[in-house]
Amino acid sequence: MTTSLDYVNPRVRAIRVSTQSFLQNLAHQITQNMTQGGQKPLKGVIDLSSGDPHRAGMKPVSFVRQVLAVCLYPHLLQDKIFSLDVKLRAQRLLQICEGQSLGSYTASSGLHHIRQTIADFITKRDAGISANPRNVFISSGAQRALMVVVKLLSSGEGQTQTGILTPQPCPYTLPPLLDEAGVLAVPYRLMEERGWALDLNQLRQALDSARGGCNPRAIYISNPGNPTGHVQDRNSIQEVIQLATAEKLLLLVDEVYQDSVYGQNTEFLSYKKVLFEMGQEFSETVELVSFHSLSCASVAECGLRAGYMEAVNIDPDVMKVFDTMLCTDISAPTTGQLALDLMLNPPGPGDPSYDTHAQELLLTRTVLTRNAQRALEVLNDLPGFSCQPAMGGIYLYPSVKLPAGIREQAEMLELGADVFYCQKLLEEERLLLGAGQDSGEAGSHHFRLCVLVPTYVLEDALHRLSAFHLHLMGHHTVAGRNVKGKAGCSSQSGLTCVQPTTV
Amino acid sequence: MTTSLDYVNPRVRAIRVSTQSFLQNLAHQITQNMTQGGQKPLKGVIDLSSGDPHRAGMKPVSFVRQVLAVCLYPHLLQDKIFSLDVKLRAQRLLQICEGQSLGSYTASSGLHHIRQTIADFITKRDAGISANPRNVFISSGAQRALMVVVKLLSSGEGQTQTGILTPQPCPYTLPPLLDEAGVLAVPYRLMEERGWALDLNQLRQALDSARGGCNPRAIYISNPGNPTGHVQDRNSIQEVIQLATAEKLLLLVDEVYQDSVYGQNTEFLSYKKVLFEMGQEFSETVELVSFHSLSCASVAECGLRAGYMEAVNIDPDVMKVFDTMLCTDISAPTTGQLALDLMLNPPGPGDPSYDTHAQELLLTRTVLTRNAQRALEVLNDLPGFSCQPAMGGIYLYPSVKLPAGIREQAEMLELGADVFYCQKLLEEERLLLGAGQDSGEAGSHHFRLCVLVPTYVLEDALHRLSAFHLHLMGHHTVAGRNVKGKAGCSSQSGLTCVQPTTV
Repeated sequence: MTTSLDYVNPRVRAIRVSTQSFLQNLAHQITQNMTQGGQKPLKGVIDLSSGDPHRAGMKPVSFVRQVLAVCLYPHLLQDKIFSLDVKLRAQRLLQICEGQSLGSYTASSGLHHIRQTIADFITKRDAGISANPRNVFISSGAQRALMVVVKLLSSGEGQTQTGILTPQPCPYTLPPLLDEAGVLAVPYRLMEERGWALDLNQLRQALDSARGGCNPRAIYISNPGNPTGHVQDRNSIQEVIQLATAEKLLLLVDEVYQDSVYGQNTEFLSYKKVLFEMGQEFSETVELVSFHSLSCASVAECGLRAGYMEAVNIDPDVMKVFDTMLCTDISAPTTGQLALDLMLNPPGPGDPSYDTHAQELLLTRTVLTRNAQRALEVLNDLPGFSCQPAMGGIYLYPSVKLPAGIREQAEMLELGADVFYCQKLLEEERLLLGAGQDSGEAGSHHFRLCVLVPTYVLEDALHRLSAFHLHLMGHHTVAGRNVKGKAGCSSQSGLTCVQPTTV
Repeated sequence: MTTSLDYVNPRVRAIRVSTQSFLQNLAHQITQNMTQGGQKPLKGVIDLSSGDPHRAGMKPVSFVRQVLAVCLYPHLLQDKIFSLDVKLRAQRLLQICEGQSLGSYTASSGLHHIRQTIADFITKRDAGISANPRNVFISSGAQRALMVVVKLLSSGEGQTQTGILTPQPCPYTLPPLLDEAGVLAVPYRLMEERGWALDLNQLRQALDSARGGCNPRAIYISNPGNPTGHVQDRNSIQEVIQLATAEKLLLLVDEVYQDSVYGQNTEFLSYKKVLFEMGQEFSETVELVSFHSLSCASVAECGLRAGYMEAVNIDPDVMKVFDTMLCTDISAPTTGQLALDLMLNPPGPGDPSYDTHAQELLLTRTVLTRNAQRALEVLNDLPGFSCQPAMGGIYLYPSVKLPAGIREQAEMLELGADVFYCQKLLEEERLLLGAGQDSGEAGSHHFRLCVLVPTYVLEDALHRLSAFHLHLMGHHTVAGRNVKGKAGCSSQSGLTCVQPTTV
């Protein structure tokens, strides 16, 4: 065949397939098998592996959905069920769409009005440090915006190949993206024992050892950390900025979870704000691109696909290239773009929708905070598990010491032991966690679990995990000496252990 | 600066910026200037350059919008304004979304249920030649799906660089896409004097002359033609398939306007149908990828961003790579995916929404057919203009012989004469046409105009064009001897000429 794998673009062929795809396909298969014949399964799959709160049952924000529904079908402007502010906002948003229809294309970098909304949001968030809508580029997700910048940086091969410093662990979507762009990931370790803090020495060492092997041109940061839940303080951000200045590195900052910082005495500081408060020496020179998304915690409209980047101190000619590259997509989906407007410019006090909106956001935050605490307790009670408390984001990222028997079985199957564990957990308990392997972990085993899910779903998931894990540990000897000597569920976590159900 | 243009990925730097971007930015600027101070402009910009019917005032299909509105805000299931089939469909579509929310991610290649809907649609369209949902990949637009395949084919440089045979004229979005993928466009001329028919000798000559200079691996076809409006007959399609077989070339067929064939005695035949009717020798070997989109004529939901490709005879291992590449986008927007389902599986006879739906589609088709005829008459009445009748699609693509004075002025400004003409037309009459330069035209001047717009908009646009062009021709001597000796508006076109308004 003309297009057999042998003839496929070598770079494309080299894109690594995440174990996430493998496991999610398996989960889909299990669900399919369960529902064949039209029967509703007694015990459905719970997927905590991806940051997809609606999938697990979190509810959408009413104001966002109401305005979008009216925009899609403007006859609803006559409907009594919507409040005045919903209708007024829908009218305003329809005005900014060409032909007053969501069916029209927009400019490649997004609707001008919404770029302005984003700039206003950033200015307010950063206590008046102003943002210019011309530096804001809307795309069909933060991931897509990141791809634009990474591809733009990509060049060379061997010693001249572009490298990007990437945290270990990193978001599981990052490695395939870098593969596709032809950029080398240069890993720097985050410090698990310090709550996954960024250590400047690790960053510097990674940079030093990369030089000569490739051409490092940027530092990628995830703050609040995906999947770690760590939130950087001002000092840590300043250190990174100073390093970027000294080494002439571009900063790529994933700030998608900026709306979900819940640790005590912890606040979200944007890189841009810290940069501008460091004085002109930095604020006028350091090149920074920050990413945000509709897939964040508060609205979590992942399926609507929209995000944006703000470029700081980027050459205007280069920003023109951003626009040219976004042209390939023609434009980001209008429903997503409008949802960005609604997310960043929500109803204010006095507006008819304000109370409900505020309550919904508060409920999400409460669920997230409580769930993170609850899951932390249960995980740290399981033998072999060790989990750092998170301060933000939507994940926990525990490590686990797996029995030698499990690791050997995995090796025979040519699977990572974490992947094998996830597969067994999925098959036996219909619970899907993310394997640390996708986040660049090697030599240790971690799991990613999203805690922004309804509390009853989390409880069910923790039950399944505990049952599976305890059963497993009963059959295998745990490797290493550092494993806590616990067996069975602790009374502290308050879980009633259930026996594993073998499917 | 670290990321000055000098350090940008050379391939990215080489992406050509279409004059379409330049002209649309200018149009936006003009609109901005007009509306500054909050005044509503007396004469707004009419944009016929892009295939964006809603922008010009075409109405969305009610059934599509009603179901989407209910899916976004399921409380509307209680609302009396929606008919039963709207509610039932919305319920069914919510069932297939994870967590019954459009806010959830979907599989990278799209919702399984909707891939099945697409396969069913194709099977029905092709008189029972069956399509497999596993060969269908949903993406955020046909353009994005095409990029996946083109990037997969891309490799080599110099004599080994992948080449793709592309029609001249081609869709204006194609050349930048090939640039970004690092693939060489190998142009084959379409035959203007034969209504832009595809001529096999031209294709063969292009292929022969390309060999040695690059590695041609695929033929790109646009049928019905964008921007030409030509529709291939069975014989023409068979010839292309035979050539592809003999030369081991992959067929990439843009069939986005398959729903808008209106020429007398003309029908749309899919490449797949023709292929399968040629017998096993072809149907089991020829590699074909066909593209379709929500941005087609009947629903024209361009802003919702969804399309798909169907792969025929493509190695399953290669199809896995399609999926891996679509993973970079995470998933196509759910609103667009659901709209695909509604477009391809519309209400049937007996359903409460059927009559309205059928009327709306009929109206669109009537407007398109009449407008195409009307615009053809007016264009062919203008001195220097010559336009081939279209049989399908949504564009007309006239050529015009421009006066030497215009060409000289354009040259001084380092602009193509067609681009210069479009710029002047936009500035003076606030009418935007597409310049042929973006479609690969050289040596002649063509314009692209979308005729799927409300009839009063088309009339207004034709007035503006006639006024501008006649005024221009009054001031310049027309080059060449083949120009028709017409002056002023012909009585045949029935237009009352208006004097050009200089802004």
